[in-house]
Amino acid sequence: MKLATIRTNGNSHATGGDTAAALIDGDEAILLSYTDAGTALAAASLASLDQATTGESIPLERVRFASVLPHPGKIICVGLNYADHIAEMGNEAPAAPTCFSKYAGALIGHGDDIHLPPSDISAMVDWEVELTVVVGSPVRNASAVEAQAAIAGYTVMNDISMRDWQKRTSQFLMGKTWEHATPLGPWIVGTDELGDGSGLAVSCSVGGVSKQQSTTDELVFSAIDLVQYISTVITLEPGDIIATGTPGGVGFGRNPKEFLNDGDVVETTIEGIGTLTNRCLQT
Amino acid sequence: MKLATIRTNGNSHATGGDTAAALIDGDEAILLSYTDAGTALAAASLASLDQATTGESIPLERVRFASVLPHPGKIICVGLNYADHIAEMGNEAPAAPTCFSKYAGALIGHGDDIHLPPSDISAMVDWEVELTVVVGSPVRNASAVEAQAAIAGYTVMNDISMRDWQKRTSQFLMGKTWEHATPLGPWIVGTDELGDGSGLAVSCSVGGVSKQQSTTDELVFSAIDLVQYISTVITLEPGDIIATGTPGGVGFGRNPKEFLNDGDVVETTIEGIGTLTNRCLQT
Repeated sequence: MKLATIRTNGNSHATGGDTAAALIDGDEAILLSYTDAGTALAAASLASLDQATTGESIPLERVRFASVLPHPGKIICVGLNYADHIAEMGNEAPAAPTCFSKYAGALIGHGDDIHLPPSDISAMVDWEVELTVVVGSPVRNASAVEAQAAIAGYTVMNDISMRDWQKRTSQFLMGKTWEHATPLGPWIVGTDELGDGSGLAVSCSVGGVSKQQSTTDELVFSAIDLVQYISTVITLEPGDIIATGTPGGVGFGRNPKEFLNDGDVVETTIEGIGTLTNRCLQT
Repeated sequence: MKLATIRTNGNSHATGGDTAAALIDGDEAILLSYTDAGTALAAASLASLDQATTGESIPLERVRFASVLPHPGKIICVGLNYADHIAEMGNEAPAAPTCFSKYAGALIGHGDDIHLPPSDISAMVDWEVELTVVVGSPVRNASAVEAQAAIAGYTVMNDISMRDWQKRTSQFLMGKTWEHATPLGPWIVGTDELGDGSGLAVSCSVGGVSKQQSTTDELVFSAIDLVQYISTVITLEPGDIIATGTPGGVGFGRNPKEFLNDGDVVETTIEGIGTLTNRCLQT
């Protein structure tokens, strides 16, 4: 079961909005009676959504994807969660998850352009492939069993980062939330297929050249650890997402350092989910 | 013009929700045809809201306040923005605003209990009075004039902070977003009365004892500076809030350190806006 949010601008369809939730089945997107994957998950479990189809379908090659969750209630990002990335950024292994956030206005879909800041604002835009947990049911103070049960599935984020802004102060936020620059999707794959999210190959390439390659077995804090930890502080709700951090191979960690340029095509892949393909557009 | 969000649970009223936006006029709350102050500001300017009343009013002494903005699209908090607080926290003056966030689930209203974590989770819960900017219209890459025009008004936040969680990793977020613990309100006062937000006395007392006293003239980065800076990165939208940072006098900066305890009453005041009164409740 793959759950997406697709653009429907100008097309007549059941929900009447600019987007619709859809199930991806082979080479078809089957529209659901929800405006996006977030409202779908707030109303029903991922496994039951095949009972909410509208009867409309679109050939997959004609689908334009939105951010799979256009308006998550919370976007929780985890830094420094793979040993090799901790080393390349010059940090020590943290005793607890390093959590920060970004705002929904940063999110884009598979196929959308990554908006690069004007070069006088930032010329240090970097890539970060991240397995991303999608919460399916409300949970607070979760045990490990409750944390697993609260996860609907997983998707892919590229946590595009302006390193100069990220490092300008102690807090990462302003370097992590550039508008229209964080690809999320292309779809959500359920825990029935991906379990606890372990054992998945993660990779990122730029212009066809491999930059990051690892597996989620290298995570310091697992998906379940993160749901437990964050739910100590605040209730996780359906459609909230946790980006679990990135492995080594980011541009900032290379010698010489590398950053994204106008026209670069970024491919962000997680095994068992899929690939986000996005071209960089200098703004 | 004072704009609030009030609880209406179980009461019949025009919007049908659990809350309603209301104008506070003397000793009356006049209900508006919006579910909360955020939806009101998304639909109309603060100055024009007196044309959206429902005809219902409630005596002020019977009003129960919700967080003045229950679901802001963005909550942007600024750290280290008063010279004396920078010194007491052991930091150096930053070259740019130190921005982080919290989630809407942290917000509570005037009169609500501040939920303290169980003492084995945190026994270092601290107070932080903050002038809070409320955005009234969308703005990106704002000039100073555009930044001023995009501000609808100001409200009061107590940016309650779990210092142990805030300092556990490099990122403040987990120490700033404890559920049901950040008072916001009691209402929004417009720029017609408060201009650029300068020259306002800010204070916080605990159990009737004054702990913080300063003025917004001591801000390193002003309200207008902050709107300009943040709008470089992302569009600010109506109902977004920017908590501008706290002056000296927090519990962590005292010798010996002081923290909030069950039953403590916290009063958080900004001149020209009003006072948030909240009792601490150990959970």
